[in-house]
Amino acid sequence: MIVRPRPHWLHLLFVRHGSILHLILPQLLCALAFAIGVTVLHGQVLQWKIPLNFVPFSLIGLTLAIFLGFRNGTSYSRWWEARVLWGTLLVECRAAMRHALTLVDGPEHAAVLARRLIALAHALRHQLRRSDASADLARLLPPEEAARVGAARFPAAMLLQMAGEWLGEMRAQGRVAAPLVPVLEAPLAQLGSALGGCERIASTPIPFTYSVIIHRTIYCYVLLLPFGLVDAIGPMTPVIVAFIAYTFFALEALGSELEEPFGLAANDLALDSLCWTIETAVLESLGRSDGPPQPQARNFQLT
Amino acid sequence: MIVRPRPHWLHLLFVRHGSILHLILPQLLCALAFAIGVTVLHGQVLQWKIPLNFVPFSLIGLTLAIFLGFRNGTSYSRWWEARVLWGTLLVECRAAMRHALTLVDGPEHAAVLARRLIALAHALRHQLRRSDASADLARLLPPEEAARVGAARFPAAMLLQMAGEWLGEMRAQGRVAAPLVPVLEAPLAQLGSALGGCERIASTPIPFTYSVIIHRTIYCYVLLLPFGLVDAIGPMTPVIVAFIAYTFFALEALGSELEEPFGLAANDLALDSLCWTIETAVLESLGRSDGPPQPQARNFQLT
Amino acid sequence: MIVRPRPHWLHLLFVRHGSILHLILPQLLCALAFAIGVTVLHGQVLQWKIPLNFVPFSLIGLTLAIFLGFRNGTSYSRWWEARVLWGTLLVECRAAMRHALTLVDGPEHAAVLARRLIALAHALRHQLRRSDASADLARLLPPEEAARVGAARFPAAMLLQMAGEWLGEMRAQGRVAAPLVPVLEAPLAQLGSALGGCERIASTPIPFTYSVIIHRTIYCYVLLLPFGLVDAIGPMTPVIVAFIAYTFFALEALGSELEEPFGLAANDLALDSLCWTIETAVLESLGRSDGPPQPQARNFQLT
Amino acid sequence: MIVRPRPHWLHLLFVRHGSILHLILPQLLCALAFAIGVTVLHGQVLQWKIPLNFVPFSLIGLTLAIFLGFRNGTSYSRWWEARVLWGTLLVECRAAMRHALTLVDGPEHAAVLARRLIALAHALRHQLRRSDASADLARLLPPEEAARVGAARFPAAMLLQMAGEWLGEMRAQGRVAAPLVPVLEAPLAQLGSALGGCERIASTPIPFTYSVIIHRTIYCYVLLLPFGLVDAIGPMTPVIVAFIAYTFFALEALGSELEEPFGLAANDLALDSLCWTIETAVLESLGRSDGPPQPQARNFQLT
Amino acid sequence: MIVRPRPHWLHLLFVRHGSILHLILPQLLCALAFAIGVTVLHGQVLQWKIPLNFVPFSLIGLTLAIFLGFRNGTSYSRWWEARVLWGTLLVECRAAMRHALTLVDGPEHAAVLARRLIALAHALRHQLRRSDASADLARLLPPEEAARVGAARFPAAMLLQMAGEWLGEMRAQGRVAAPLVPVLEAPLAQLGSALGGCERIASTPIPFTYSVIIHRTIYCYVLLLPFGLVDAIGPMTPVIVAFIAYTFFALEALGSELEEPFGLAANDLALDSLCWTIETAVLESLGRSDGPPQPQARNFQLT
Repeated sequence: MIVRPRPHWLHLLFVRHGSILHLILPQLLCALAFAIGVTVLHGQVLQWKIPLNFVPFSLIGLTLAIFLGFRNGTSYSRWWEARVLWGTLLVECRAAMRHALTLVDGPEHAAVLARRLIALAHALRHQLRRSDASADLARLLPPEEAARVGAARFPAAMLLQMAGEWLGEMRAQGRVAAPLVPVLEAPLAQLGSALGGCERIASTPIPFTYSVIIHRTIYCYVLLLPFGLVDAIGPMTPVIVAFIAYTFFALEALGSELEEPFGLAANDLALDSLCWTIETAVLESLGRSDGPPQPQARNFQLT
Repeated sequence: MIVRPRPHWLHLLFVRHGSILHLILPQLLCALAFAIGVTVLHGQVLQWKIPLNFVPFSLIGLTLAIFLGFRNGTSYSRWWEARVLWGTLLVECRAAMRHALTLVDGPEHAAVLARRLIALAHALRHQLRRSDASADLARLLPPEEAARVGAARFPAAMLLQMAGEWLGEMRAQGRVAAPLVPVLEAPLAQLGSALGGCERIASTPIPFTYSVIIHRTIYCYVLLLPFGLVDAIGPMTPVIVAFIAYTFFALEALGSELEEPFGLAANDLALDSLCWTIETAVLESLGRSDGPPQPQARNFQLT
Repeated sequence: MIVRPRPHWLHLLFVRHGSILHLILPQLLCALAFAIGVTVLHGQVLQWKIPLNFVPFSLIGLTLAIFLGFRNGTSYSRWWEARVLWGTLLVECRAAMRHALTLVDGPEHAAVLARRLIALAHALRHQLRRSDASADLARLLPPEEAARVGAARFPAAMLLQMAGEWLGEMRAQGRVAAPLVPVLEAPLAQLGSALGGCERIASTPIPFTYSVIIHRTIYCYVLLLPFGLVDAIGPMTPVIVAFIAYTFFALEALGSELEEPFGLAANDLALDSLCWTIETAVLESLGRSDGPPQPQARNFQLT
Repeated sequence: MIVRPRPHWLHLLFVRHGSILHLILPQLLCALAFAIGVTVLHGQVLQWKIPLNFVPFSLIGLTLAIFLGFRNGTSYSRWWEARVLWGTLLVECRAAMRHALTLVDGPEHAAVLARRLIALAHALRHQLRRSDASADLARLLPPEEAARVGAARFPAAMLLQMAGEWLGEMRAQGRVAAPLVPVLEAPLAQLGSALGGCERIASTPIPFTYSVIIHRTIYCYVLLLPFGLVDAIGPMTPVIVAFIAYTFFALEALGSELEEPFGLAANDLALDSLCWTIETAVLESLGRSDGPPQPQARNFQLT
Repeated sequence: MIVRPRPHWLHLLFVRHGSILHLILPQLLCALAFAIGVTVLHGQVLQWKIPLNFVPFSLIGLTLAIFLGFRNGTSYSRWWEARVLWGTLLVECRAAMRHALTLVDGPEHAAVLARRLIALAHALRHQLRRSDASADLARLLPPEEAARVGAARFPAAMLLQMAGEWLGEMRAQGRVAAPLVPVLEAPLAQLGSALGGCERIASTPIPFTYSVIIHRTIYCYVLLLPFGLVDAIGPMTPVIVAFIAYTFFALEALGSELEEPFGLAANDLALDSLCWTIETAVLESLGRSDGPPQPQARNFQLT
């Protein structure tokens, strides 16, 4: 995630970090070169003048707008839903700790729940990014618990079950009255939903066929565009083609980044920071402030 | 569902699996042939020149954009809602198992609930796809239970009721305290909602009249288009008509696939995989890993 | 509701059932006749040539698109929300029966609840369609209960209250433990919300002023359009005017049908079938299969 | 709120009640007079011909469509959310009465709750419309309760608190078992949310700056439009300008009415009728039918 | 937040407070000056006539509309969600007080909860605005509590935990029966969600790359526009360019204000007033009316 104060409007025209230009440069240069070629040849291919004007592009614009607007809106919705789900993780970890500390006889037992919740956040992050969780698990959990989680196919769900086991033990030991169990279970149910929501976003992309149709339509459009403009605006054709291609390619590339919000691209969610926040908040509820140091942005970017 | 890593931008222009081209090829060829005919005849029909230019197509574009945008957005919403409902199935099966294992005296009874939940997912899949559930039911349930489910008009709802009966028995045997029953009931209520939501999507299509209006508008548009373009762009008319027809037909065909998300078309939901995930997750909560093998994608496609 | 398999793309161009053409034929013929008149007179009225071209229609299209898109989206949302509410009725009737059968001592009492729930669905259907519920009430309820419901201003709400009275009696008789009452109350609360939601949609149309503005704008547009086209496309003017008018009128007529989803028009909800499903599902939960026969589609239409 | 059956399509073109024309007539006549002036002078101001064509209006249309579509959608959403919240009031008043009558020992105490709920609806109506609630409070409540509510800064919230006090008394007197209190509290919590939602809509308009930008853009557009059209369509200019101005002004005026849904304008919510429905429904749950007479529409309008 | 009655339509054209003009004046004057220069030079740069017409601007308008509509809608959604969350704070503080006063033995203890809830609202306001909360905390809390909150990294979450501790003490002292604890916990859980939602909006901006792309596209558009218009409308070019630039810049600036709804800009939320409302409502529930004076609008603006 890119975090930077909004630059002055002149500066914003030329910022480098946060621009998506470097991702689409090859395509953009191809489009520009092709448009220059068409302009130089006055729209002729093998002595034959391609007859085109702006009309077809207006008409194609109709469906293209639907596709691009849909793709952009859907990608952003996925990104924002993922952010909301991680916000829910934080909120419910706090709630679970509040209950454990105030409604259970013997608040010293809350530390066991705390470490399982913190580990849950880290395990989910690793699961979503397909990275190795073992270092974090070893740091946070006793060896046998870390081994049990490490062997699970769904590590985050296993940690949630272990949080449920903690509650079961508290109940069995009579430390929590039966009518209070629903209160303590509620955050766990919410955590389960948030966890399942993240898995859903990670495992179900936007239907692949959309990408194919949008991609083909955009490239055909950009390929044909110089022939449609060259008669009307002559040498300005490459400038305009590059400008239009820039907006198309940028929209497609940004949608592609946001669509999978758990990655490490510039605009993806800062899961490292979110895990740090959860860890710090859970520890603070215990009155501790000995958590790891806060992740810092590098080139205005948090991971 | 098509699962494949995003290809390089050049490769994406020519992928075969995931494209929808094969579904719309007949219409597309018809449109192309017709446009070629019109171009060859210079827009004349029986010696009479059809007088048309681009203006009517801009004006028709107004309502067409509304129709197509609506159809696309609504179809996708149905598809995504269906996916969310199946995600809920997974989440609530896990929650029900967590409760059964931690809040009920005698966790060995959880196995009975587990097999009913797994059978529920499979039965719902077969119900939505109108396929035969008996093999899966026989694999998962004791004969008398399988018979009872097989005879039911709503097999998934019957399995949910049997999950409720399990809870009623646990309560009657005193294995679960009365104040805990609401906790154990909550996932069953959620499962009931998810199940009802799937039935709703499967039984209620987008009003059929939309399909008729959109279909007719698109085909009239494509039929008239060559007459409107031929004077301005001459021999490029067939190329542009085919391009525009491709975007229209693809949008319609994709909407038609997504509208009924429980089928077996390329972009429909991978219910087989989702059932496998639910089965594996429920078994893992019991500490078992002896579930069936994971379904593999064939030609990048999961069913 | 129209239920039919999607016809072949050629057949879909000419289907009769499901088309909305018969509803808008008078207006469409008026528009066509007017456009033919204008074309014959070459756009002259009393020797005065009306000077118009396509430009005003592009500009008017701006607000027209907003109005039509809004109207279409809002009408569909009302229709779909109504469908979701009826889906909730089914889900919660099943949940109430599951609780009555598994959490109440003496499952034979569930039959009383069952008949009140079935009657609730039928009473709501009649209330929304302003039809006479007495035959259905007499079929389902004992005479004194039927009389009480028949005398009520809000019959469905009265039946919900009677379902609550059943729960109150079960509690008073000690057949259900106090901590379980919240579980049994939950579906009743959901039924109350669904019922209130249906009443809300039925009693609150889309603000009438929208209909007036949209209607006037469309008809002025269609009235002026021939003058704007006749100079450019001559004898094709009536064809194009009829085509554009068809899309406008069809969009308005379909929106008008979906806006009030509880009626008997072709695209309205199939409340008869939904009531049948609820009745069958409730009876099935009791192990009975002696409900009424399933309503059959007539000309592909369910009511 | 305007309630009238949908008139015939010819009649709908000329209805008076429900049209918004009388609100925008001054601006519309100004725009028309200005356009006539420009047409008579052939677009010249002080001998200088203003050079304009339709192009700028197409380009401005881009942002104008965004503004108008946003304003229209947001205003309607506020109006509909307000309606949903009042629907919730009705649903939860019914639920509270159902619980009071079936889950409390001594159903005669429910009358106290009933009058507080009815008074709550009326007090909220007066609070939202900034009208004097004292007559309604005096009619519904004992003097000391009316005085307490009348002195409160948030009268509706005070009545909700008094409903909570009723529940507290029932519990203190042992008329309701502790595990049932959550059931009886749930509707009160929902009423609190609905009440807060209404206060939120009433106290937070759409950001004022939107109104300013939209207003200025529309009026500049309409002011410049005759110069852009007069060369192309000559004497038809005033007709088209008036038509386009009508759609802009009507959209703005309707948005302005719906944005504040609790007022007394033609399309605002019929709070009087909604309060009557709540009062009647609450009394009906007590078996009484002696409520006030139903408000009747005047000129098709309910207040 | 700007609160003013809607001015007359003539007055609204010239209001100063509430306009966003002063924020975009520099850019606007630059654009105007540039357009005047281009007009004077008849579109020539260094003796070379830049060949452009309106066509490219129509085509660019396609993606620009998607970007601007998305940005505007998303910014408003964030603003409105933030408002809803603060409305939830008010609703749940009232609910918590209602429970504390009616369901706890010894209503005099509610004062402790009251001051923690009031402090929570103020602490959240300061946290979101990054201002110093110590004066407000000292005013509202005993010194040791103020110190504990002041030392916390998440002060609002700390106050919520302290509200939970109050509930835990009430339970430990036997002042609240176990089955009632879920009722009293519910508002705290809602407060935790609202608080987390505000933190989420404050910490996660719209992806920065959107700002970059939109900004660059708008400025390129405005830079090239005079060359595209000067041949067609000559001396009117600067007027139209300034008009179009005004709508673009205003949309961007307003989106930028609403995107971060917790600041002090003209259209940001009036957190001071919202905190005052919460404080007054909580005190009123205790029967007190000795809260601070109501914040008054200055130049129609509440902070």
